[in-house]
Amino acid sequence: MTTLATPLQPTDRTTVRRGKNRAVADREILHDVLRAGMICHLGVIMGDAPMVLPTAYGIDLDRGPDGTLYLHGSVAARSVMAAPDQTICVTVTHLDGLVLARSAFHHSVNYRSAVIYGVPRLVVDLDEKLHGLDRIVDHLVPGRTSGTRAPNRKELAATSVLALDLTEASVKMRAEGANDEEEDLALPHWAGVIPVRLTAGAPITNPDCPHPIPTHIQSRSHDLTTDEFLAIRDA
Amino acid sequence: MTTLATPLQPTDRTTVRRGKNRAVADREILHDVLRAGMICHLGVIMGDAPMVLPTAYGIDLDRGPDGTLYLHGSVAARSVMAAPDQTICVTVTHLDGLVLARSAFHHSVNYRSAVIYGVPRLVVDLDEKLHGLDRIVDHLVPGRTSGTRAPNRKELAATSVLALDLTEASVKMRAEGANDEEEDLALPHWAGVIPVRLTAGAPITNPDCPHPIPTHIQSRSHDLTTDEFLAIRDA
Repeated sequence: MTTLATPLQPTDRTTVRRGKNRAVADREILHDVLRAGMICHLGVIMGDAPMVLPTAYGIDLDRGPDGTLYLHGSVAARSVMAAPDQTICVTVTHLDGLVLARSAFHHSVNYRSAVIYGVPRLVVDLDEKLHGLDRIVDHLVPGRTSGTRAPNRKELAATSVLALDLTEASVKMRAEGANDEEEDLALPHWAGVIPVRLTAGAPITNPDCPHPIPTHIQSRSHDLTTDEFLAIRDA
Repeated sequence: MTTLATPLQPTDRTTVRRGKNRAVADREILHDVLRAGMICHLGVIMGDAPMVLPTAYGIDLDRGPDGTLYLHGSVAARSVMAAPDQTICVTVTHLDGLVLARSAFHHSVNYRSAVIYGVPRLVVDLDEKLHGLDRIVDHLVPGRTSGTRAPNRKELAATSVLALDLTEASVKMRAEGANDEEEDLALPHWAGVIPVRLTAGAPITNPDCPHPIPTHIQSRSHDLTTDEFLAIRDA
């Protein structure tokens, strides 16, 4: 695991105003949230409105002073080419649980959420473009790039990759039970958490594919299933 | 299930430019995506940057001509009060699978994603505010509001609710196997899908709560677990 020197630097934008106790100033946690995520929600300004779209991403924590996030661009790339100095916002959220309190007011969710701001860079260097695409594919399934055909010249030309420094970032999380008011504790209502998690089903081989499921696919499926979680669920 | 008369009306913004075959013009599907979601990603413009934050929401498909989405506001409400005519963007995404193709280029994800644009309304009417909060709590766990203490005057004053018409919306989805180039089919690489899904663990009762787990909580947990999915996973 890579340890980076720069702590999370809250700018005015990334200073968490509400629920400050839930803001986490730890670059390791940022990395964990990004590593565990599968898609991000990318925000760009289009005309006079914000646009939020789910997007694939990858990370290279050794690139740049604070690490680099690569985005598989299309709409984003279009907006970046139209407005090269535009700040974008990338958010990666894990929903971890539904928090059910005795009072409606204290209902909440457990989650981990990373928010990154910056002016992205359209990757034009071919080597970095290939590298960025590899990071994106390997982010979906670690080790996958060694089990696929690499992009050819035509495919590379048809794909846009954006790079975003992980410099201006914040992490917020909640990971606890229901927090009710003292005077509500005696109410006859149940309080607690329903833990939730993204889990994987068994890999489904394409009908036109005669090959057995390779180890990196089995591992990824297992990875997203997590025996610990299922043990809790099946208890 | 409520059927609304207005079909999804693509505006310039909600016209899907890329992957048109993946755009779905069916209000029923929009409703399904919103019903199944647990949090949305809310985009607002703050200063000169987009801001994307995970947010709780609820829906009332019988309110307004096209139905209403309620947002539990804080940051959003602040931005709406600062810029009352600002368009916001609400995105609800379900990640359904990782699509692994023989070529890196054709890697993808299966997903369902709803995007809604509009100028939200800060709910000031007390009855509608209560109603909106009920819809948000019942969205997390159907039937939950009848098992909690309703908000009191002070809590209502401390909470912001935004209402957004479901008029300008679009849905995109992908739900298929890997689509490789004809000339790649003979490659020795595995192709297929790892299905993923948000699943629930067993409810965890708060240590300070002596009550048994009520039916609406058990049902919700089961709902998010789905025997069909686990049967696939455990096959």
